[in-house]
Amino acid sequence: MMGLMEDEVFRAFTTYASVVAVKMVLMSPLTAYFRFTRGAFANAEDVALKPPEERKKLLRTDPDVERVRRCHQNDLENVVPFLALGLLYSLSGPELSCALLHFRLFVGSRIFHTVSYVCTLPQPCRALSFIVGLLTNLSMAYRLLSNVMVL
Amino acid sequence: MMGLMEDEVFRAFTTYASVVAVKMVLMSPLTAYFRFTRGAFANAEDVALKPPEERKKLLRTDPDVERVRRCHQNDLENVVPFLALGLLYSLSGPELSCALLHFRLFVGSRIFHTVSYVCTLPQPCRALSFIVGLLTNLSMAYRLLSNVMVL
Amino acid sequence: MMGLMEDEVFRAFTTYASVVAVKMVLMSPLTAYFRFTRGAFANAEDVALKPPEERKKLLRTDPDVERVRRCHQNDLENVVPFLALGLLYSLSGPELSCALLHFRLFVGSRIFHTVSYVCTLPQPCRALSFIVGLLTNLSMAYRLLSNVMVL
Repeated sequence: MMGLMEDEVFRAFTTYASVVAVKMVLMSPLTAYFRFTRGAFANAEDVALKPPEERKKLLRTDPDVERVRRCHQNDLENVVPFLALGLLYSLSGPELSCALLHFRLFVGSRIFHTVSYVCTLPQPCRALSFIVGLLTNLSMAYRLLSNVMVL
Repeated sequence: MMGLMEDEVFRAFTTYASVVAVKMVLMSPLTAYFRFTRGAFANAEDVALKPPEERKKLLRTDPDVERVRRCHQNDLENVVPFLALGLLYSLSGPELSCALLHFRLFVGSRIFHTVSYVCTLPQPCRALSFIVGLLTNLSMAYRLLSNVMVL
Repeated sequence: MMGLMEDEVFRAFTTYASVVAVKMVLMSPLTAYFRFTRGAFANAEDVALKPPEERKKLLRTDPDVERVRRCHQNDLENVVPFLALGLLYSLSGPELSCALLHFRLFVGSRIFHTVSYVCTLPQPCRALSFIVGLLTNLSMAYRLLSNVMVL
């Protein structure tokens, strides 16, 4: 086996990346939960077992479902760059304390972002948690580019 | 060169990750195919060569195009966590047989998911293939977190 | 520390991956900019500070906002496979010149794609830049599968 998992920074990245990936993956069942409780489906085959007169009504959009989907989309837009940048950043030999700061800030801000979005907390909860995540990504990219630049 | 590609598990991950990434990437041309055959475009510049009286009519949504786009979106939501979790999982030293089981289940379930979605197979084809992929992701994350946890 | 960052190809991948990840991440602030200048918001809490009679009008979709969001979505659909395939490709021991060709073509084509999309350049600017990115991804996947295939 490769010794990557013996590196403290890489183990920390693995932990935080797994946590935030699981959080993102669980947005799909949450969307399904809202689809069933709100009765708002996207595909004809999903309502095939319902009585025919109800089917048309169930193929609709619902504000709560759309809210969870926007939250999921925002996760994709931010967690995915974190997974790539964080991996490369872990391999570029940062201080453990500095790496942990980045990973904790990012994962914490994304969990708070999801809570803010799904529970409709008043602004600027969502905006601030989004910005913290964005700045963490940009900071890791800056450190990568200033250390490893090869054009 | 690094010896990562000499590791059997990592080679297996590389193979299955490439297959499922190619499958996901090919959803874009499939969307384009449906846009052209159904005559449903999203941007004014895409229909600039058509006669002016037809242009407005072509800027519309079409159920088949939206179906392929939802399938592509579901791929993004599930294949991307697989790429990240699978990479880290491969580096954490699993048994080859156990890793192959995860990779094959995931890739198989996603291919079946795409067929179910695009060809509108009756439920629960799509739901089951989605759930198998989700559980594979969660299982890899569980193994990662129970082996490598550093908070 | 692991010696991955001593490998020229891996350093080149890290550089180009960071550049294209930063470009993708910056689409979110660009969307926010268009939302504020066009006055088109998606969530009730985003307009809570406006006078009540204006709020309803601000919860709308705007063609410019939707255009940036489609561009961001297309980025997700193409940059994410690049990040995964490019990483594995870098680890599979390619020639530096060949790897640089792939990375430069991809990153260049995606930057040109964003400019084409956001500034509404006439077709086939956007289509060509999209196709170049797609072919780069497929070429890396082909090289991976022909070198490392383990099924």
